[in-house]
Amino acid sequence: MDRTDPLFLETLAARLCDALGADAVTAAPEARYRGDRAEPGAADTRFLLALPRDVEGVRATLRLAHETGTPVVPRGAGSGLSGGAVAIDGGIVLGLERLRAIREIDPLDEVAVVEAGVITADLSAALAPQGFFYAPDPASVTISTIGGNVATNAGGLHCAKYGVTRESVLALEVVLADGTLLRTGHRSLKGVTGLDLTQLLIGSEGTLAVIVAVTVRIRPLPVARRTVLARFPTTAQAADGVNAISRSPVRPAATELLDAGALADIDALGGSSLGATGTGAVLLLELDGYGIEEQTADLISVLTGAGGKVQVIEAAAEAEQLWELRRSSRAAGGGRARLGEDVAVPKSRLAEMFAQLAEIGRRHGIRTSAVAHAGDGNLHPALSLPDVPEDPSVALPAPILAAADEVVRTALELGGTISGEHGIGTTKQHWLDLELSPASRDLQHRLKQAFDPHGLLNPGRAL
Amino acid sequence: MDRTDPLFLETLAARLCDALGADAVTAAPEARYRGDRAEPGAADTRFLLALPRDVEGVRATLRLAHETGTPVVPRGAGSGLSGGAVAIDGGIVLGLERLRAIREIDPLDEVAVVEAGVITADLSAALAPQGFFYAPDPASVTISTIGGNVATNAGGLHCAKYGVTRESVLALEVVLADGTLLRTGHRSLKGVTGLDLTQLLIGSEGTLAVIVAVTVRIRPLPVARRTVLARFPTTAQAADGVNAISRSPVRPAATELLDAGALADIDALGGSSLGATGTGAVLLLELDGYGIEEQTADLISVLTGAGGKVQVIEAAAEAEQLWELRRSSRAAGGGRARLGEDVAVPKSRLAEMFAQLAEIGRRHGIRTSAVAHAGDGNLHPALSLPDVPEDPSVALPAPILAAADEVVRTALELGGTISGEHGIGTTKQHWLDLELSPASRDLQHRLKQAFDPHGLLNPGRAL
Repeated sequence: MDRTDPLFLETLAARLCDALGADAVTAAPEARYRGDRAEPGAADTRFLLALPRDVEGVRATLRLAHETGTPVVPRGAGSGLSGGAVAIDGGIVLGLERLRAIREIDPLDEVAVVEAGVITADLSAALAPQGFFYAPDPASVTISTIGGNVATNAGGLHCAKYGVTRESVLALEVVLADGTLLRTGHRSLKGVTGLDLTQLLIGSEGTLAVIVAVTVRIRPLPVARRTVLARFPTTAQAADGVNAISRSPVRPAATELLDAGALADIDALGGSSLGATGTGAVLLLELDGYGIEEQTADLISVLTGAGGKVQVIEAAAEAEQLWELRRSSRAAGGGRARLGEDVAVPKSRLAEMFAQLAEIGRRHGIRTSAVAHAGDGNLHPALSLPDVPEDPSVALPAPILAAADEVVRTALELGGTISGEHGIGTTKQHWLDLELSPASRDLQHRLKQAFDPHGLLNPGRAL
Repeated sequence: MDRTDPLFLETLAARLCDALGADAVTAAPEARYRGDRAEPGAADTRFLLALPRDVEGVRATLRLAHETGTPVVPRGAGSGLSGGAVAIDGGIVLGLERLRAIREIDPLDEVAVVEAGVITADLSAALAPQGFFYAPDPASVTISTIGGNVATNAGGLHCAKYGVTRESVLALEVVLADGTLLRTGHRSLKGVTGLDLTQLLIGSEGTLAVIVAVTVRIRPLPVARRTVLARFPTTAQAADGVNAISRSPVRPAATELLDAGALADIDALGGSSLGATGTGAVLLLELDGYGIEEQTADLISVLTGAGGKVQVIEAAAEAEQLWELRRSSRAAGGGRARLGEDVAVPKSRLAEMFAQLAEIGRRHGIRTSAVAHAGDGNLHPALSLPDVPEDPSVALPAPILAAADEVVRTALELGGTISGEHGIGTTKQHWLDLELSPASRDLQHRLKQAFDPHGLLNPGRAL
């Protein structure tokens, strides 16, 4: 097969159909398969969509790609926010969405074995009746897949206490670029045999191998949960509240900081009144586990001491509503030209980051707001022009892009990173050299080469 | 310089002295620098010992090794238990013991930055006045170094709750094989820029780069601690107690299972009476954090339900004594020909592992006993011949070696691993193919090649 042949994709499609079955391959995929939520992909991209039903189908797809030198873009649910799963012209988009078996739940070993296409929230739903949960909870948890979460090392709201996705992955089943099936890791929490391929694969954004199944650590549901809301006059004081928590022994399961702009957007969308007069920022916190009364007392004392007006949310329904409002922050403020960013800073620098963000907005004449997973220093600034309507078909206005560049550089100057939890994909590659040294990038490309010598897996992305 | 020249090492020593200072280099090192606690090394090995005073000294050593094609064995405190730091004839042992600055402790960011040669317990001692601790606690904590702990991804007693060393490492400063300084990772808990070199380096046993400094996550000291002792008639019942904990919401910070043989050895060494009549095995547990009374009540209920006789150790001194006895288990039973093993199994299989261990001992006519970090399935069997005196200068008796082989194979059959926390080094390499597929080993060698193309860093070990 000759990749320069104009009929190459047709011929490849026929061979893929032979291998996977006709209903698992299409040369005319729905538009959504072209990209993700950050980068919709170009309408004129010609690619095949393969949706194999099982691991053998994934292997067959990769063997064929290997044989023909065809680039492959692995894809979970397409819910990514960094253009990590954007179709490549003349390539295959390899969707894992049909691999959705929860193969096993074992409460005694505290593990579950799930296929890559399982929706993350479905796993926790399956675990709950047995008294367990899966800790990583990216805001996309109801639409994203475990495989995608592992490929991006997804974060979320509860990472300061429970860790990011990485801390909940014990073992992987992956398919290498030539179709070889590789199992890595252990079913036990401990294990130090050889280099830790599991850890290298986590967060590799589809560039090293295709993840087909994951052994995750599961945890017992906490005996109690408690939501606490603290209002502060200013963002700086809310950030000081985070520092006060750091100095204390109490460690909330979630510590979300919402600034006035984010509160206004959420209130406008949800009809709530979080951003009431005098509230410059809010900390929305969750405590869980044993000693919930002691924890609550300590937290109230800490936050009151830092100048917060603290409210314990006793009613479960009210608490759930608050968390829903928090999770709505990406949708809030929609309809206008807007960019959602994702950076992280050492958590003591949050106040500076928020101050710089406001200053950057003023300088570029744009509106800025942010929510932060404050316990781990991860910040999601929203940069918008309220008078310019949203239009995914055109580039974002220049002032927004210029401001985003300054936001990313500011995070780095504060000792942070250009991506807290969304990944690099295609949208952040132009900033890689700001964070990584030439020695680091060179090494990463050599590791890529070691896994994928012909450069077929998500080529030109992420690294 | 010609490595075949009989005076090569002398010439190299002179050049190293020029670079590091004469007091940092010796061609006649003390015997202890030849190996570690598992593999003392051969008396006739000719090597140079370099003990640079700073990171630049490490870089200079590696530049010279790179230029001359000299193998380098990185070394922490030499407290390893798998022969990971054994001198190579004609090579350099690069000791990190003089890099012992605690560069920074930052309670607000919850990080500390420490050089590789810092003794692990010294870090926690420095953190305590500020109300923090460093969680990983291998039994060697008072003699091993942070750099060595990271190089082996060391475990310990508190890993089920707090994770192994990996979960406490945020960023690394390493020197590559050619002397290039590389910084990896982030000061924030989150960060997903590029491949995670930090994670790949952790546990790589000196084969990829030389770790010179580590940014670790620190945690607030728990508000309370409680020690609980549960006696069971049999090992199987104690293992059932572990399963009962898994089914409950309580998660001890430490869950140590000691069988009758281990208790007898400890009692003989320490004058204690843990292995009193009717006690077939003991669970020694630590609870910590908020709600200590609720936790204790739940744990008592769970363990009593599983057939244990449960005792809460109220007095701090008595609790500390029990943990000292536990930590003495490696020394207990000394003086006789003995091998200490390190395997892990899925934790629900502990009862089977203990049963098989006893059976293996019977079959080979040797004495067996074991302690287990039961919460993470990690087991340290001791295989001995009480009538044969200990003699490190001769090989262990054949029945012990044959039994060890069966122990390792049994752990794998139960879904476990050949090394839970000690690493592979030189002593476990002959078992690697039992656990890792040819595809995995091949990939690991290609990753090694990407980091160290001339194969100079701890060559022929670990992978």
